[in-house]
Amino acid sequence: MIKNYNIVIAGLGTVGSSTINLIEKNKNIFLMKSGLRINIVGIFAKNKSKKRNFKKNKYKWFSNPLEMIKQKDVDTVVELIGGDKGIAKKICFEALKNNKNLITANKALIANDGYELAKLAEKNKVKIGFEASVAGGIPIISTLKRNFNGIKINKITGILNGTSNYILTNMLEEKNQFKNSLKKAQKLGYAEQKPDDDLNGLDTLHKILILSTIAFNKKIDLKKVVFSGINNLRKDDVFYADRLGYRIKLLGICYLEKNKLKLVVEPFLISKEKELSNVNNNLNAIIIDSNNNNKTILVGEGAGGDPTSMSVVSDILNIHFEDKNDFMYGIKYQNLRKIKISNNLSNKDLFFIRAQIYDKPGAIAAITTILKNYKISIKSLFQEQINQKLFNVVILTHKCKKSFINLAASNLNNCKFVKQDSIIMQVLHV
Amino acid sequence: MIKNYNIVIAGLGTVGSSTINLIEKNKNIFLMKSGLRINIVGIFAKNKSKKRNFKKNKYKWFSNPLEMIKQKDVDTVVELIGGDKGIAKKICFEALKNNKNLITANKALIANDGYELAKLAEKNKVKIGFEASVAGGIPIISTLKRNFNGIKINKITGILNGTSNYILTNMLEEKNQFKNSLKKAQKLGYAEQKPDDDLNGLDTLHKILILSTIAFNKKIDLKKVVFSGINNLRKDDVFYADRLGYRIKLLGICYLEKNKLKLVVEPFLISKEKELSNVNNNLNAIIIDSNNNNKTILVGEGAGGDPTSMSVVSDILNIHFEDKNDFMYGIKYQNLRKIKISNNLSNKDLFFIRAQIYDKPGAIAAITTILKNYKISIKSLFQEQINQKLFNVVILTHKCKKSFINLAASNLNNCKFVKQDSIIMQVLHV
Repeated sequence: MIKNYNIVIAGLGTVGSSTINLIEKNKNIFLMKSGLRINIVGIFAKNKSKKRNFKKNKYKWFSNPLEMIKQKDVDTVVELIGGDKGIAKKICFEALKNNKNLITANKALIANDGYELAKLAEKNKVKIGFEASVAGGIPIISTLKRNFNGIKINKITGILNGTSNYILTNMLEEKNQFKNSLKKAQKLGYAEQKPDDDLNGLDTLHKILILSTIAFNKKIDLKKVVFSGINNLRKDDVFYADRLGYRIKLLGICYLEKNKLKLVVEPFLISKEKELSNVNNNLNAIIIDSNNNNKTILVGEGAGGDPTSMSVVSDILNIHFEDKNDFMYGIKYQNLRKIKISNNLSNKDLFFIRAQIYDKPGAIAAITTILKNYKISIKSLFQEQINQKLFNVVILTHKCKKSFINLAASNLNNCKFVKQDSIIMQVLHV
Repeated sequence: MIKNYNIVIAGLGTVGSSTINLIEKNKNIFLMKSGLRINIVGIFAKNKSKKRNFKKNKYKWFSNPLEMIKQKDVDTVVELIGGDKGIAKKICFEALKNNKNLITANKALIANDGYELAKLAEKNKVKIGFEASVAGGIPIISTLKRNFNGIKINKITGILNGTSNYILTNMLEEKNQFKNSLKKAQKLGYAEQKPDDDLNGLDTLHKILILSTIAFNKKIDLKKVVFSGINNLRKDDVFYADRLGYRIKLLGICYLEKNKLKLVVEPFLISKEKELSNVNNNLNAIIIDSNNNNKTILVGEGAGGDPTSMSVVSDILNIHFEDKNDFMYGIKYQNLRKIKISNNLSNKDLFFIRAQIYDKPGAIAAITTILKNYKISIKSLFQEQINQKLFNVVILTHKCKKSFINLAASNLNNCKFVKQDSIIMQVLHV
């Protein structure tokens, strides 16, 4: 028995186009496996005249996406425009208000307005699929909601931003400066033309926040989270870390501790022997630590048309079959609890410090005295000349508290021998 | 609204006990997330008097499992005894015949009788959950059925046997002989007292066969597959491979090619730079290659009470919610097609050869002449003295066809200088 299933697609960029092509190509697979015939009964993008790599004329084009949504025979609205404001937001809310299921890859919107979306979807008894919003082709949303649904999750640790991971890998492997690695990432389609949110950590924050809500059933106020990215790092940092036995990875980490949700987004040093250190280029990876320290690791492409459209399509296929009890975050909206956020990992750990210092007598003594004043002892120190006036001093500390490091950092940055704010990264044992 | 959900459990070993403890511990999580109250309304094991690490008296014990199954209020039968014959098989078939859902971790049974189980379940409109049957805590069944349901899967490659992987890792890391590594694996609970099916590759074959059926929707005749395991390997092999830049991994591989299903289970050499080479100890890993070479890798514990019981419990929770369209292999039984099997990878590749040779003049010449006769050229060769009479000769060939290697191997094994059958392993580029 064949069931017709009608969708509309808003947003026809890389992911939108790949989704349409995938649906056309695999029609027979859907029919055979699910008995579903997926009909695309409307498409919309901001720019109609732009060239697309699918047959535009096959589909009904709407210049007003809200009109498109409101068609009576639409089952599901697929939003692939992106962004937490403007038309993308309007489309998502209007879809739910009009009792349509919603599928979206929009992590910024979900991180900002996901709870409102969940509430509205429950009220109107429709469903939200957002597998494509985190880690493209890695089925992490489904895994957390359906496979880790019966147990306590301890911690989630993820490399969630392919752009940053590519740049970190490329600086090391091809000895490129940051800006050249970024250019290469853009050329390969791994970075957008405006990559700020990828590089400053915001994109990683959006994603780890979404995963946290599913894993821990907490409501998180995005605005209260402090985060950082890789935009201050330089090629030197990657090589110094390498020399000390580490790789640099931008991570999102979350776990519950003493009635607080620890939510941390920053670059860390990871020993070369650990799994995550070998997740390179544009790959993403997520470690789920659960049930008596059972670790499950998922690795795959975090972005791009092919992997992401796979997640969009699996959502389209599954949304039809799932029970009404499939809540957006795996739990009723009303059962999501508010929680205080902390942005510091509590463990003592090693820290990497790189300070750019004027080549003057007393410089090293000044730096090491600052560390001594905060009881920070040094495990390893080396320096490297940058030019006639400047050198880098690189320090790996023994285990110490982050709070002490923060105090020392602010003193370092005010020190007359130090040229610019120092780079400080924690070593993570994952 | 709370729904009571009644299960019975047959088999109370490591996984059975962990499942009961997990259900008791997380009652409130199930209630909150799914509104399900899971009641264990019967337990059975072969040996009633054996000590168990849960409160046996809390549950109704049945000495006849068939009587247990047939209770009117039972929704789902959980079979955790294992084995493709005897009472486990009887329980599984009787459960379905009596219109009960079935959850099982029994890979041997599914590999042998899965198609019959699927047919019966469809006929009686009940469901089968078998997430726990492959790779314990890795949600590979669900991932293939629900996340890769809309695309073409190209290939699956897996480290699926924790016992073998532990022994291979341990021989290298602790320089143990095979039998001592096996003993240690047994001590740690990573190997059974009768580990034959783990070491000879049969367990890996069961698992890759199950994954193949879901990925490619083919019926596979288990009896037609040739397979091998690690039982002939020795500590030396692991070290020789290491010296050449490789790790040895027992893999299950499957893909479609020219109307045949390639199904291969044997130990391979994998470059130390590749992801799978770093999956060590008792870990399992699966690479899903799909949709334009998008690679997704899942890594986790392949066995043991905690990870496996997680999969059993997620099956219990999900089986209740899923649609009637949730077919065992993701597709109707009648749509599974028979297919011819081939056990040879078709690519030319490098091969590792270790021959144990008598220390006599002409020995090396005899070996290399055999290779030359089959146009196999040598990339690297070294020899190592075993004792006064014997030495190992280790050869890494240039790329050549497996069929030529097989012919050469049979000649090698008949050569008067060669003491015992040579070890031959293919290098795999994954």
